[in-house]
Amino acid sequence: MTQTSFADPSAEPSVQEEGDELRPRFDAAGLVTAVVTDHASGELLMVAHMNAEALELTLETRKAHYWSRSRQALWKKGETSGGLQTVREMRLDCDQDAVWLRVDVAVPTETCHTGRSTCFYRTVADDGHTLKLAEGVACRS
Amino acid sequence: MTQTSFADPSAEPSVQEEGDELRPRFDAAGLVTAVVTDHASGELLMVAHMNAEALELTLETRKAHYWSRSRQALWKKGETSGGLQTVREMRLDCDQDAVWLRVDVAVPTETCHTGRSTCFYRTVADDGHTLKLAEGVACRS
Repeated sequence: MTQTSFADPSAEPSVQEEGDELRPRFDAAGLVTAVVTDHASGELLMVAHMNAEALELTLETRKAHYWSRSRQALWKKGETSGGLQTVREMRLDCDQDAVWLRVDVAVPTETCHTGRSTCFYRTVADDGHTLKLAEGVACRS
Repeated sequence: MTQTSFADPSAEPSVQEEGDELRPRFDAAGLVTAVVTDHASGELLMVAHMNAEALELTLETRKAHYWSRSRQALWKKGETSGGLQTVREMRLDCDQDAVWLRVDVAVPTETCHTGRSTCFYRTVADDGHTLKLAEGVACRS
């Protein structure tokens, strides 16, 4: 990992929760959770993780970068698929262990590896265990 | 943890990603990530975690239950604060390790322990390290 310039998280709520300085609270694996929504529609697109390098690259380039836990590698979203995400706004949560990215997606149906515009394409039915396809999800094919 | 009735996750994408059965993929700590948005406005409210019991109770009661990692305890959201969350829709992501709850909140300004309608009340400024208050966030005081 490259050296990054983030301040350490503070134990003081007045600093961490109410302050005006980005102090990401990375977990034991060095990650924060990233929640990604479509800037125009507000739809939830995906959940991913960022290490310090991914967060820094995202802030520098405005293109979303993540840390792939399965591949243990930095991952510029859409670099191969074309589903690049341009970050229009980034927010932090209260204790700064989660970020919210509001993005524009270059090729929406490349958001999910299944060829859909969101990873959240199934709804739990009233029986509590059956999944059904959600309406309004765009597909590649 | 009580015995739960969820099927184990499948290694087959045709089952896990394209199937119609809820097969939550809990991580090594026994948790899935929960992303919570307001059913009416679509705003991102919070990110939390659920163990099997929390997920089951949420499905049974339609009131959001989580697992508090800091307190290592089951947590019925809003039980003490009044910020109860009624689940209008629950979705699963492709590999079923994250859930999306679309909720109605009884007392919106009790969503965040800081007395705000969302935990995501700060935006990262263009300089990449200053946080500023986001517009449109309701406060308790």
